Amino acid sequence: MKVSVVGASGYIGGEAVRLLMTHPKVQPNQITSERFAGKFVQAVHPNLRGSSLKFSSINDLEETDVLFLALPHGVSMEKIKDLEKKAGKIIDLSGDFRLRDPEDYKKWYKHPHPNPEYLKRFVYGNAELHRKEIRESNLVAGTGCLATATIMGLYPLFKNNLVKDQVIVEAKVGSSASGNKPNLSTHHSERSNVIRSFKPTGHRHTAEIIQELSFNSKPQVHFSGTAVELVRGILATSHVFLKKGFTKKDIWRIYRQEYNDEPFVRIVKKSRGVYRYPEPKILAGTNFVEVGFELDPNSNRLVVMSAIDNLMKGGAGQAVQSMNIMCGFEETTGLEFLGLHPV
Amino acid sequence: MKVSVVGASGYIGGEAVRLLMTHPKVQPNQITSERFAGKFVQAVHPNLRGSSLKFSSINDLEETDVLFLALPHGVSMEKIKDLEKKAGKIIDLSGDFRLRDPEDYKKWYKHPHPNPEYLKRFVYGNAELHRKEIRESNLVAGTGCLATATIMGLYPLFKNNLVKDQVIVEAKVGSSASGNKPNLSTHHSERSNVIRSFKPTGHRHTAEIIQELSFNSKPQVHFSGTAVELVRGILATSHVFLKKGFTKKDIWRIYRQEYNDEPFVRIVKKSRGVYRYPEPKILAGTNFVEVGFELDPNSNRLVVMSAIDNLMKGGAGQAVQSMNIMCGFEETTGLEFLGLHPV
Amino acid sequence: MKVSVVGASGYIGGEAVRLLMTHPKVQPNQITSERFAGKFVQAVHPNLRGSSLKFSSINDLEETDVLFLALPHGVSMEKIKDLEKKAGKIIDLSGDFRLRDPEDYKKWYKHPHPNPEYLKRFVYGNAELHRKEIRESNLVAGTGCLATATIMGLYPLFKNNLVKDQVIVEAKVGSSASGNKPNLSTHHSERSNVIRSFKPTGHRHTAEIIQELSFNSKPQVHFSGTAVELVRGILATSHVFLKKGFTKKDIWRIYRQEYNDEPFVRIVKKSRGVYRYPEPKILAGTNFVEVGFELDPNSNRLVVMSAIDNLMKGGAGQAVQSMNIMCGFEETTGLEFLGLHPV
Amino acid sequence: MKVSVVGASGYIGGEAVRLLMTHPKVQPNQITSERFAGKFVQAVHPNLRGSSLKFSSINDLEETDVLFLALPHGVSMEKIKDLEKKAGKIIDLSGDFRLRDPEDYKKWYKHPHPNPEYLKRFVYGNAELHRKEIRESNLVAGTGCLATATIMGLYPLFKNNLVKDQVIVEAKVGSSASGNKPNLSTHHSERSNVIRSFKPTGHRHTAEIIQELSFNSKPQVHFSGTAVELVRGILATSHVFLKKGFTKKDIWRIYRQEYNDEPFVRIVKKSRGVYRYPEPKILAGTNFVEVGFELDPNSNRLVVMSAIDNLMKGGAGQAVQSMNIMCGFEETTGLEFLGLHPV
Repeated sequence: MKVSVVGASGYIGGEAVRLLMTHPKVQPNQITSERFAGKFVQAVHPNLRGSSLKFSSINDLEETDVLFLALPHGVSMEKIKDLEKKAGKIIDLSGDFRLRDPEDYKKWYKHPHPNPEYLKRFVYGNAELHRKEIRESNLVAGTGCLATATIMGLYPLFKNNLVKDQVIVEAKVGSSASGNKPNLSTHHSERSNVIRSFKPTGHRHTAEIIQELSFNSKPQVHFSGTAVELVRGILATSHVFLKKGFTKKDIWRIYRQEYNDEPFVRIVKKSRGVYRYPEPKILAGTNFVEVGFELDPNSNRLVVMSAIDNLMKGGAGQAVQSMNIMCGFEETTGLEFLGLHPV
Repeated sequence: MKVSVVGASGYIGGEAVRLLMTHPKVQPNQITSERFAGKFVQAVHPNLRGSSLKFSSINDLEETDVLFLALPHGVSMEKIKDLEKKAGKIIDLSGDFRLRDPEDYKKWYKHPHPNPEYLKRFVYGNAELHRKEIRESNLVAGTGCLATATIMGLYPLFKNNLVKDQVIVEAKVGSSASGNKPNLSTHHSERSNVIRSFKPTGHRHTAEIIQELSFNSKPQVHFSGTAVELVRGILATSHVFLKKGFTKKDIWRIYRQEYNDEPFVRIVKKSRGVYRYPEPKILAGTNFVEVGFELDPNSNRLVVMSAIDNLMKGGAGQAVQSMNIMCGFEETTGLEFLGLHPV
Repeated sequence: MKVSVVGASGYIGGEAVRLLMTHPKVQPNQITSERFAGKFVQAVHPNLRGSSLKFSSINDLEETDVLFLALPHGVSMEKIKDLEKKAGKIIDLSGDFRLRDPEDYKKWYKHPHPNPEYLKRFVYGNAELHRKEIRESNLVAGTGCLATATIMGLYPLFKNNLVKDQVIVEAKVGSSASGNKPNLSTHHSERSNVIRSFKPTGHRHTAEIIQELSFNSKPQVHFSGTAVELVRGILATSHVFLKKGFTKKDIWRIYRQEYNDEPFVRIVKKSRGVYRYPEPKILAGTNFVEVGFELDPNSNRLVVMSAIDNLMKGGAGQAVQSMNIMCGFEETTGLEFLGLHPV
Repeated sequence: MKVSVVGASGYIGGEAVRLLMTHPKVQPNQITSERFAGKFVQAVHPNLRGSSLKFSSINDLEETDVLFLALPHGVSMEKIKDLEKKAGKIIDLSGDFRLRDPEDYKKWYKHPHPNPEYLKRFVYGNAELHRKEIRESNLVAGTGCLATATIMGLYPLFKNNLVKDQVIVEAKVGSSASGNKPNLSTHHSERSNVIRSFKPTGHRHTAEIIQELSFNSKPQVHFSGTAVELVRGILATSHVFLKKGFTKKDIWRIYRQEYNDEPFVRIVKKSRGVYRYPEPKILAGTNFVEVGFELDPNSNRLVVMSAIDNLMKGGAGQAVQSMNIMCGFEETTGLEFLGLHPV
């Protein structure tokens, strides 16, 4: 089966290429980059040294079975009609097709969507929430990395109607989430050692979070992002006030019920040892989500921690997981890496 | 004027020694450490290479004008009666005398206080809140580092009665806050690159925060701590729901009113540039607090960011500031370091 | 085929377990740790969360096809006679059996070897240099991490007789190379951000380097180690003075001749881009060695750079490579991970 | 006394401004930046928040007592004639006036010097080597950061004629040494965690090193640079082969003889503790040089380690030290910061 990646010079595109190169069921056919067309993939991704893959231009894109789009936000949505003709199945990794409601898109992205009919056709590509729809769809929207971490932590609580009032989410994130375009704020001397609030209010991923956690009504979820010293990884800490009467045992039961059969979800909550809660550092390169929690003995607050690798479960890994589902492969194929310790 | 530091081999004790060595009005007389008694201070604090200061045993402690206690939590409160005889003025840097109410102490520290009468006598050593009491007192309790960052961010809001309902505080903190005793969780390979929840609920500093922010009633402040890759520094992010009708302008006015004359407080909120909000990395070695905020346009949530160096404004720096006040020196004496950029 | 790992709670032991868990031809049978006997492997190695493997005591070690020994230096050499009875093939990852000459052992390790007859029987487990002997042996000594990086850089030059006079090697190394036993020098606040000379002279790996680079005579190789801020990875920089008359082209030819067919060696030397020379950071988790060089236009100095992941090609990865050779598997089996970018 | 800084938006320029702001004998008058003219200094240097200093254009430069030039390499040498008219004393921090011999300049900088007569007039601004000339000069050239670290380590050996044959220097350096202009190689995700050879041969600072270590003849010093994970700091490790007959005691004596009266030089060589050798991390923000050594018991190799903060003793700190000498101030004025531990 032939797979192509459009926009393969970015971090998520490069991660997709890496995963496809060792995937036993598919072969990366074309990978595109306008800036690097004609050059070997290793010109940008040094981990792929030795590969004979070369970038080509999107203008030379051939028909393919599966197409990954890893373009900057705003590009796919302009080109989607043409790109759809090239591939039986499309997985778009940008923010262009994640929201179902054109009004939501307009509110959070500050301009109307040029092809709103596609918003209904794309499936939100979180396998744990939408496995069935993904299997039946040819158009999947890769999910936002910060949204993915948050949703995976909160979904069982909202689905089972435990949440009262406002939810506060504070996500800590490494530098790779801002992509590979250099500027002063990502210059090493400036970005190193920071604990930098970058989007205390108004982060676009909030829209996805609210959409995916809406069961009977839109939840009041408030999101803030903080950049920390790390390259890969996200820890979302969510503070939830529970409706009356839930015990630690209930929470355990609810998380187990939702996630016990999930191949990529680990519930992490230990009373001893160094790694008691979800920890992004050990997830680098893996497609796992770790979810854990702690009940405040002094109040009805539940603190939920959820960790991912932003380029994997928050990007290319989840996209390959979706491809596996769409193509009828074993869902974990090509995503078996266990992660490193220490790292 | 003679000053001694008991427990000078720890990180906060060492920082106090450093500050006193270059303070123009005092001279470090004795510094104690049981483990390093007889050795030069540089045996533990390599930045003080070249100093002829030596550690001595607490048993050899002489009378002194000012005494800094930087002992592990639980030690000062047992020895306070004896130590009080040695010095006209005492600044204790542990958690032993920060709470006014013995019941609070028992609740958060899980055992009764052995000398509860001292809880009333010690002043909570945050100069911005208690300058007058510090000036008039001979017993000052150094404040908790995480509590200091949080309180400095929230104090103007509580004092001016803007806060509605629950407040969520999430503090990110570097490794030096856990002291210099090695264990597996602070082993470099394990501690590097983490985003580690270490006290999602039940952190003892919560008690100080609630105490200091109680104006008419005890506030509902919920605190969680996360360890990040950094040696020095804290960023506390507080999520506050405001009572009706406050605008960005009001918030500015309130912060300015409380902090404009404070020599160590900077209000930081910019719409451009790399450092738009409080940033601990540029505060390393300084006694500054940076406070900033952002109002959520979609709700009544105010996000307050506050940053300090945990060993300075969150420890030895604030203690020297208290000493300056107690002794009638210019408050900023010996604390003029501006901080480094980049670092 | 059954494989067991003795001493599996350390970093190299844990890495061996990880590799064996996803190796298609073998199954990890027993993993031992005295301290953690009875506990799940994830108690120490959080990346293996979800595995049902448990540590057992070395006293309960059963017979096995292949045995990896990842014990602290000095232990294997005492127990080797007993351990040999348990397994058809042994790969020892300590420093106990790397040197051929008992006199060398005594000189560098400062005590006589208790079982010197084994020094002759063990093969030095560097596949690129000793593939044939490894294939025919049942006893393989895993190679020192710093030695591996150095040897891989210098071997083609010594083998082809290009080196004149003294060679200086300076290796930079991450914290995982010093193992997982906490002490003050590895405490995060002390170990972070260092550029710390830790063994400017007298490093034991020098003995292996000299042994493996001796063709007609013992080479004069001088080794110094420097610890840098990093968890995994080594870059060895070797400064070689060449005999007369060699050009850049000659050097290229010699490296290509020795390494072009090697599945785990990459020659890296580019005139543009960010990653022009060997770079350990992109090798984390892989079994690759990168080797590059630069000729000084002002002298006959050749600077050789060589990079590895110290726990992989410098430890468990190379051991699995040896196992693959000993057992007749494809040499790269279970070692296909390409590495991450960025990381 | 009035001081101005031309090119104050860079890292070394900013560091000079910081030092001058708290220097008791001078006042920063003008600071220039073409890009930031009209803006407050904190627009670029967030550690100087609160200062009312503003950048102006070089075109508006007024006459001043002392002028610091912190322009990109190649600019000062074009403008020097005009700039000389503006100030009684000039300290240039670029590479433009460090070499005495125009032929050397041409060889290492690959183009002829436009104003070679100035090469004779400028004094190489290393106070420990040229204190007397600096005192008597009005034109001082700030020294290269890597050169400074290297020279301070090797100077006593060459001066006292101990060195035989070739010397190999390998310097490890943090990211601030490459300035504040963003590009892909300094992008946080790419620059983090590297051990990156950046100039294994041909580094321009080699010219300064050779010039300053030439006593009877030009020494054979070979320099290589490696970028490591750190913002501030350099450790130069120099490998020297000694002439016959020198003992550890002799080396101690020679270093003590040269450096014992130097206020900014510390000889560091301990047999126990964490910080046994020179360590840049504890020098951040200070003007100290640490120098240490180890004699190889197996050969005549001496390993010399020397550490500095590249922006301080390797830049602005050394420049202020020169200013102090030129102006007749106490040499350590404004440079008393002791450095932080831990950091």
